[in-house]
Amino acid sequence: MIELAIFGAGRIGQVHAANAAAHPSIRLKYIVDPVSREARDNLAAQTGARVVPAETAFADDALDGVIIASSTDTHADLLMRAADAGKAVFCEKPISLDFETVRNVTDHVEASGIACLLGFQRRYDSNFRFVRDRIASGQAGQLEHIVMHTRDPAPPPRSYVERSGGMFRDQAIHDFDMARYLLGEEIATVYAVGNALIDPEIAAAGDIDTAMVTLTSVSGRFVQMVNCRRAPFGYDQRLEALCDREVLYVENRPQRGVTIADAGGFHSSAPMNYFIERFADAYRAEMSAFVDLIETASPPLAGIRDGLEAQRLAEAAIVSMKTRMPVDIHPGWQP
Amino acid sequence: MIELAIFGAGRIGQVHAANAAAHPSIRLKYIVDPVSREARDNLAAQTGARVVPAETAFADDALDGVIIASSTDTHADLLMRAADAGKAVFCEKPISLDFETVRNVTDHVEASGIACLLGFQRRYDSNFRFVRDRIASGQAGQLEHIVMHTRDPAPPPRSYVERSGGMFRDQAIHDFDMARYLLGEEIATVYAVGNALIDPEIAAAGDIDTAMVTLTSVSGRFVQMVNCRRAPFGYDQRLEALCDREVLYVENRPQRGVTIADAGGFHSSAPMNYFIERFADAYRAEMSAFVDLIETASPPLAGIRDGLEAQRLAEAAIVSMKTRMPVDIHPGWQP
Amino acid sequence: MIELAIFGAGRIGQVHAANAAAHPSIRLKYIVDPVSREARDNLAAQTGARVVPAETAFADDALDGVIIASSTDTHADLLMRAADAGKAVFCEKPISLDFETVRNVTDHVEASGIACLLGFQRRYDSNFRFVRDRIASGQAGQLEHIVMHTRDPAPPPRSYVERSGGMFRDQAIHDFDMARYLLGEEIATVYAVGNALIDPEIAAAGDIDTAMVTLTSVSGRFVQMVNCRRAPFGYDQRLEALCDREVLYVENRPQRGVTIADAGGFHSSAPMNYFIERFADAYRAEMSAFVDLIETASPPLAGIRDGLEAQRLAEAAIVSMKTRMPVDIHPGWQP
Amino acid sequence: MIELAIFGAGRIGQVHAANAAAHPSIRLKYIVDPVSREARDNLAAQTGARVVPAETAFADDALDGVIIASSTDTHADLLMRAADAGKAVFCEKPISLDFETVRNVTDHVEASGIACLLGFQRRYDSNFRFVRDRIASGQAGQLEHIVMHTRDPAPPPRSYVERSGGMFRDQAIHDFDMARYLLGEEIATVYAVGNALIDPEIAAAGDIDTAMVTLTSVSGRFVQMVNCRRAPFGYDQRLEALCDREVLYVENRPQRGVTIADAGGFHSSAPMNYFIERFADAYRAEMSAFVDLIETASPPLAGIRDGLEAQRLAEAAIVSMKTRMPVDIHPGWQP
Repeated sequence: MIELAIFGAGRIGQVHAANAAAHPSIRLKYIVDPVSREARDNLAAQTGARVVPAETAFADDALDGVIIASSTDTHADLLMRAADAGKAVFCEKPISLDFETVRNVTDHVEASGIACLLGFQRRYDSNFRFVRDRIASGQAGQLEHIVMHTRDPAPPPRSYVERSGGMFRDQAIHDFDMARYLLGEEIATVYAVGNALIDPEIAAAGDIDTAMVTLTSVSGRFVQMVNCRRAPFGYDQRLEALCDREVLYVENRPQRGVTIADAGGFHSSAPMNYFIERFADAYRAEMSAFVDLIETASPPLAGIRDGLEAQRLAEAAIVSMKTRMPVDIHPGWQP
Repeated sequence: MIELAIFGAGRIGQVHAANAAAHPSIRLKYIVDPVSREARDNLAAQTGARVVPAETAFADDALDGVIIASSTDTHADLLMRAADAGKAVFCEKPISLDFETVRNVTDHVEASGIACLLGFQRRYDSNFRFVRDRIASGQAGQLEHIVMHTRDPAPPPRSYVERSGGMFRDQAIHDFDMARYLLGEEIATVYAVGNALIDPEIAAAGDIDTAMVTLTSVSGRFVQMVNCRRAPFGYDQRLEALCDREVLYVENRPQRGVTIADAGGFHSSAPMNYFIERFADAYRAEMSAFVDLIETASPPLAGIRDGLEAQRLAEAAIVSMKTRMPVDIHPGWQP
Repeated sequence: MIELAIFGAGRIGQVHAANAAAHPSIRLKYIVDPVSREARDNLAAQTGARVVPAETAFADDALDGVIIASSTDTHADLLMRAADAGKAVFCEKPISLDFETVRNVTDHVEASGIACLLGFQRRYDSNFRFVRDRIASGQAGQLEHIVMHTRDPAPPPRSYVERSGGMFRDQAIHDFDMARYLLGEEIATVYAVGNALIDPEIAAAGDIDTAMVTLTSVSGRFVQMVNCRRAPFGYDQRLEALCDREVLYVENRPQRGVTIADAGGFHSSAPMNYFIERFADAYRAEMSAFVDLIETASPPLAGIRDGLEAQRLAEAAIVSMKTRMPVDIHPGWQP
Repeated sequence: MIELAIFGAGRIGQVHAANAAAHPSIRLKYIVDPVSREARDNLAAQTGARVVPAETAFADDALDGVIIASSTDTHADLLMRAADAGKAVFCEKPISLDFETVRNVTDHVEASGIACLLGFQRRYDSNFRFVRDRIASGQAGQLEHIVMHTRDPAPPPRSYVERSGGMFRDQAIHDFDMARYLLGEEIATVYAVGNALIDPEIAAAGDIDTAMVTLTSVSGRFVQMVNCRRAPFGYDQRLEALCDREVLYVENRPQRGVTIADAGGFHSSAPMNYFIERFADAYRAEMSAFVDLIETASPPLAGIRDGLEAQRLAEAAIVSMKTRMPVDIHPGWQP
């Protein structure tokens, strides 16, 4: 039985806590959340975990690992403490909104030798994995370019936007990660444009709600990203990988398996709304992978360095958007 | 150059006249329609054909063939006269609403030796042909059963219903024909139920607007038909052929290649509406086949005996519906 | 906390046991299965339930209800004993393969006053429920006819066929139930044809693998069913309800959300395979409904009389197929 | 009756000649093609037009207009001569591969006052028009961004590539035009990357086979283009317009209306292959629009200045790709 503590009892914390509690090999021992006390207590009651301060968790030698699902500004500190305490970590992205901190934490975590799984849940979705595996198997032929769409169902509230680090660091980071994951190589050049076309509140917060990004890989292959804070029909999460012999399309998954036909034509349902629902299976798969990481040292699909590299691309996108120039990336590049 | 006369300047007559006029090997010489004079004269103006009485057409030794697209009650007589005059015939279905007449005309036409193509246009549609060819090639494996849907966009006016011979003879006859065409064998048993569930005018005319038919072939394979005078979304014309290794689906063809997504989901257009549009290519293919029949004696996909056999099934369905019993058919069966 | 016993540790028993064990309001107390001992012991280990003989379960006054998921030939006896012991029952269909037994057990269970939910899981599927609710709400307009397809992925082994009661009682019974559920009225006439077109083993066992059924409701509306023991692509479970203003289609649910395009066109995945996967959510919903039935006496979507009535239609279909005649049903009809 | 001459008897010339010959208001009087003599003579035989040298056509005062469908290097000269002769022109794109020539010809044609329709056939396709009209009507809400895919079925031969002016001028020019058409405003910034990832022959010819382009409009809205010389499944021609209330998708149109299901899943056909087939209706609509332009001075959907502006964007894309910088465009910009 693996003993785990979870930090954070908010939306994503609740998902991970439930998955941990339901996993036959996990005992969810502690919940730490000094902020959302009611949510924390409810979660404790549901999962049987004990509410403790962070110190208690890190000091418990019997604890195997920690799940960091607290607010973004706490990730870096908790990662450092986990590294120091020698606990395996399953950490939600991003590591930090400050790139230098990301770099330092990554170095420290790697130096500590702890096991670390970073929560790029899309890598754990069976459909995105199918695409990766099909490319890796050689069946699809050489990957030549990728087109990705990520559109949220509706703009987040201004308070969220202000703490988010901006759309590139907050939302598009998953696409930056997926680009690296499928290409199997690093990005050499980033060009990004962005604008607040949808929500004046986002503009007022100094952020954007619409962006277009072009990535060129080291070997000269291309990625195009469309990122948006709204799609009229809901959550839009698609990918198209053009290879030599096949094109692979990850499609939206409909909420409902019933089509309605009437005088206006054929009507099928909007996609699953929103990531909590769309990636429910992927979150479960992450938790299983975290168990495997602890029990058998099976490498995770995404580690802390993947978090660093995806964020580097987000930083480069921000620089590109601001300078209105493409940004050439090299291994040590930072903004 | 093949010289043809057309009988009938109504809806389907206009389609065939235009196709004949546009065909490089056809000279549309005569138009005969003593009833719809305005339509006839317009059609003559458009196609360059001459308006004549039937006698003129049949008496013209240079005339190669006739297209019978006039009202149903004239088909039998025109077929007999064409047989006597030795003209090739392209005749719209049905041969007659009276089965004994159908039988007599069929015998007479066959005895005369004239070439005859019967207008079961669905056989000439590329999609239905694809299914037939795929089965014939052996690629799909043995055909085991068929499910067909034919639903009109809206009930026809009562005046049409009253002259139509009823839904089985008028609409379902195409499905009876398709069943024979794909099975490649005759039907042994017909069971049909019908009701007027949609349109009280149809009930008042003594006809039905909804029917379900089950056919059992001589070798024991099955066909299910849904026939209806209305679908809320328009014209519904589908087929599903379950074979040993493949299922083949003939789908509706959408009017528009644009999908609209909004807060209600994804909306695609209604199917092409109605048979004139859906089968425009098939009507052109029929005309080419009629040319081939005259020029090179290439057998048509549907001949006059196919008209007789399909109508036999319609008659059996009517008997079945009225007696509430399945009807066993044998080669000489008639109502 | 509701205390339950489960009878049967086979395929469907494992599904129900896992759902019961995971339900926050259920304590799965006992497992009874004198036949499949290894499966039973594994299930006991996984769920924490105790292995006992049937007597122990029925004698435990604290036990609230029983789940009957054992082999078909035990259902009737267990239902009778549950009725006598005053336990709520969640019973898999069918009640018995012998119709007179079905009738007797139904009368006895109803007379006993115990709560009883019958496992027509399709009623608990969100898509079939959507169709029912949409019709019930009046939004779709009057239901006029239904077309259903049920095709298994592959013929079952002969040993299964021999114990199954035949395809009508074993497989088509779900469609008979769905017909009644959606129509909201009883069936007046059944016509069925069947044949063994696919599997000689099924023929040798005296059963059929392909059937077509036409139902006419008391008010004169129609249902068409296609039932088959194989579809080349896997599990085919569809429904089409034509109403006055809308057609509602329950579609197959694909295994995979990735489409592959290559020189041969566009390829999407086969449907979920098989009912255990396709109806996983429905089985969970059934268990929740069973809890609601026990806790708040909320009526189930399907009760024991629904089992009787669906089976009456299966019996009528068998008589129709054998006599080659439609069978008129009346409330007291039996074979 | 409008009298026209056609220049060029190649692939697209044959399409336009056939459409002109079939149009009831057009008399196709002359064919000019000093190069492809056999194709020219065949076309003359089919259409009844007379083979003449260019001089004869331009000198015929009764001639209303000319269709320029000859090789690209002749367009500019023929446009100038048509302008001087006062003939209406229907000219295939591009005007010239040399931008200064494009500018000069455009100025000259405009100064001459002749009617001129430029062959951006996509504007005449009913689906692309539906999107434009739906946006123009206000129903979709404000257009925010566009994503376009244009992929050819297979790389063209090297000889074609070498005369083509490169992929941006030859293929992507239609997307540049569509961007302007839908946005209803000019582009301010162009960023393009390109590479030869597919065909070494294209690399050897100094051209690219894969490109990604980002356009920013004057008002700050975005367009993303994927351009490619090959898609594994055939011709890929799609557009997605995200508006405030709706997303509008122009989809590929399948070759076949039959889906095949087998053990590997569901297989639908590749799209229509290639532009001649996909845009057959659009070419007919262009010819009708040319008639309207001559008869009633109805403005065409695309005029000569649209050709200039689309080409300006292609030039900017080439500069961007070569300099690896975004290019800011202004009304007088040229490479």
